[in-house]
Amino acid sequence: MSKIFEKTLSPRFSETDALGHVSNTTLPVWFEDARQPVFELFTPSLDVHNWPLILARLDVDFTAQIFYGKEVLIKTGLSRLGNSSLEVYQEAWQNNQLAAKGRTTLVHFDYQTQKAKPIEGALRDQLAQYIVEAN
Amino acid sequence: MSKIFEKTLSPRFSETDALGHVSNTTLPVWFEDARQPVFELFTPSLDVHNWPLILARLDVDFTAQIFYGKEVLIKTGLSRLGNSSLEVYQEAWQNNQLAAKGRTTLVHFDYQTQKAKPIEGALRDQLAQYIVEAN
Amino acid sequence: MSKIFEKTLSPRFSETDALGHVSNTTLPVWFEDARQPVFELFTPSLDVHNWPLILARLDVDFTAQIFYGKEVLIKTGLSRLGNSSLEVYQEAWQNNQLAAKGRTTLVHFDYQTQKAKPIEGALRDQLAQYIVEAN
Amino acid sequence: MSKIFEKTLSPRFSETDALGHVSNTTLPVWFEDARQPVFELFTPSLDVHNWPLILARLDVDFTAQIFYGKEVLIKTGLSRLGNSSLEVYQEAWQNNQLAAKGRTTLVHFDYQTQKAKPIEGALRDQLAQYIVEAN
Repeated sequence: MSKIFEKTLSPRFSETDALGHVSNTTLPVWFEDARQPVFELFTPSLDVHNWPLILARLDVDFTAQIFYGKEVLIKTGLSRLGNSSLEVYQEAWQNNQLAAKGRTTLVHFDYQTQKAKPIEGALRDQLAQYIVEAN
Repeated sequence: MSKIFEKTLSPRFSETDALGHVSNTTLPVWFEDARQPVFELFTPSLDVHNWPLILARLDVDFTAQIFYGKEVLIKTGLSRLGNSSLEVYQEAWQNNQLAAKGRTTLVHFDYQTQKAKPIEGALRDQLAQYIVEAN
Repeated sequence: MSKIFEKTLSPRFSETDALGHVSNTTLPVWFEDARQPVFELFTPSLDVHNWPLILARLDVDFTAQIFYGKEVLIKTGLSRLGNSSLEVYQEAWQNNQLAAKGRTTLVHFDYQTQKAKPIEGALRDQLAQYIVEAN
Repeated sequence: MSKIFEKTLSPRFSETDALGHVSNTTLPVWFEDARQPVFELFTPSLDVHNWPLILARLDVDFTAQIFYGKEVLIKTGLSRLGNSSLEVYQEAWQNNQLAAKGRTTLVHFDYQTQKAKPIEGALRDQLAQYIVEAN
């Protein structure tokens, strides 16, 4: 059975909008935040001057409204581990209900040579533990 | 030839991130902002208490970095006009280069009956003028 | 000795800016987030349709840069408890260093009568426990 | 009579909150955005790698709610021009009503020597044209 990363957060008042729920634009922010442990596998120091990933694509499906005042659980796994790229799959749950799910394509990148870089060795083995099946 | 909506904006300093470019999380915000003329076709008053649209899905493809200090042009059209839903197609250009493109699925919704609502009549005719071919 | 509210958070990548540190515009967002337990004293349900507070003023003093990758501790107390208003005093600490401090003036407000409302009884007693001395 | 900088913007849907108005946390973002012409006097290229200013303090007074669907005018001037620092004074107007006003203290800073740097010569003369009286 795969491992996943879990992060619990409380919606911020400033993340709601005039429709009385959490703004749709907030989900990409939460999902990026919840990918931090993935970033840490690539860059344990989280040093922003040595960042080896490019975001190529993101999508989010909204399945239920999210409200202020109740915690949200973000689950993060990998839905694909390619030669030099990976797809992160994430779900946001509130009140035991799936409220949003999203996928993000990240490319392992060497800024010096300006080329995609294979994901190999121990890093690949660690990432492989988090491969999940996307819904 | 179709009509499109165009909006020019200047990236805000707070929209950049530590990688020195505009944060990926900013694009859904800009795209929502640039959909305002679409909202106005549904609700000319932009009254938030009478909002007839639900966002069901969004995706963004990132094709070039966007930087602070140069204007960005957002082009907005419709890539699909269904019975009670529509797909908005948007592009963000900077320095005459396509930097990001995205699609958003919106559902025409009646909050009183809690059901999707057909897009008909003059509203449909107006929207139909903005149908474009997505890249 | 007074009680204070404490909240620990991890800066989000999207909260940094091109100067490589956390954007100055992020602090009012964090401070609002960290005032949630104060809101809960006024509205235990956190029901946004029954919100009894208006924000009249905020200030933030920035004393050190805040960086991505290290936790931030927000301390929240009250620097003034007036008849119908209060001043919240907050500090943000990273690496055992005071990085920012801010004050927010909130007015207890009755939206029905459109008037400021005294802070009395058990609510006042609870709030009084959090009075601190501002730096 | 002084010159001022003026910027007109449309509130974004994502900048509203569940109280149905523009979030208080949005004002520091708008004010930073509207200070861009001040930044340009210091760094005409707006090159983020050569940024000569540090923000030391900000405050905002909220005098009326701001709503989605109507333009906001931001007026920007200088309320103080010190030896090596300046105070920017800004107002946000909607429907011909003053909705918020704020002051920001910026320090002219040399990152190489890590010291505050005098504001002199042509730069000082240009800035002096924008000195206004704060309300």
